[in-house]
Amino acid sequence: MKAEHINPFIRALINGFDTMLSCKVTRGEIHLKGDPQTKFEISGIIGLSGKAVGTVVVALSESVALKAASAMLMDEYTEINDDVVDAVGEMANIVAGAAKAELAEFDMSVSLPNVITGKGHDVRFPSNVTPLCVPFECPWGELAIEVGLAPAPAEAGSMATAGLA
Amino acid sequence: MKAEHINPFIRALINGFDTMLSCKVTRGEIHLKGDPQTKFEISGIIGLSGKAVGTVVVALSESVALKAASAMLMDEYTEINDDVVDAVGEMANIVAGAAKAELAEFDMSVSLPNVITGKGHDVRFPSNVTPLCVPFECPWGELAIEVGLAPAPAEAGSMATAGLA
Repeated sequence: MKAEHINPFIRALINGFDTMLSCKVTRGEIHLKGDPQTKFEISGIIGLSGKAVGTVVVALSESVALKAASAMLMDEYTEINDDVVDAVGEMANIVAGAAKAELAEFDMSVSLPNVITGKGHDVRFPSNVTPLCVPFECPWGELAIEVGLAPAPAEAGSMATAGLA
Repeated sequence: MKAEHINPFIRALINGFDTMLSCKVTRGEIHLKGDPQTKFEISGIIGLSGKAVGTVVVALSESVALKAASAMLMDEYTEINDDVVDAVGEMANIVAGAAKAELAEFDMSVSLPNVITGKGHDVRFPSNVTPLCVPFECPWGELAIEVGLAPAPAEAGSMATAGLA
């Protein structure tokens, strides 16, 4: 994927946190996924498919997940429960939904979010995909997004046409 | 989702293991996801979207992942590395691809697989989705699939038409 394709996801995350949660997040540098990698406690993950296929991972430290869910659901959460899981899934949904609208040339639709919990979990991509990662900081702690996009299998011959290579 | 919608995924897993890996798997009972839940070491996860949206999780014990990757790639793997991760992602891809072909009425396309590693990880679904789980046994150990399907957001009004309710 081209580095520019991650920009809509970055904007979607910053805007989502700002408008929905009144939380200012600051982005770090785009980098390739690799070790050493910060491990997060909870990750929202959602698939995209159309002329390109991909996934977006919104990875949150526990403190960010709890504060974000508390702000989103106007309640106070102190542990990861079903509500927090739903809030994290919804964040992944919002980021993917806003980004796909900007990436209209790929005509993608979003699937259903899943949320991964468990300290030390790692979300990995197929080795033929090069996911781009962006770390963020906010007053609640650290978070990151990881985005992998590839040409859709039927479109693999038109990789250049799809603008992915 | 209707219980019958999981059948194509069950058939796809059994056929995939049989034809690709020469491994006979035996299925257990379909059940709703809930505690206590067997935890698996590695999970392949892939999104589907179209007239319905959903995800398929293929969850494997470490021994099944290693033996399956060894059979698929004709090598011998003794630890979870990039090749094993790719093989598990490919399994999720194969199961989702074969099942979506049978569920033609939902006109779904598959996204990119992700693979979750880390002992004790849990793959959770949004609370408004009721994923169905099926455990399997094979000579290599235990595995399971979890499938959650929901009407696509734009199609939510035609849930009955889409055959999901």
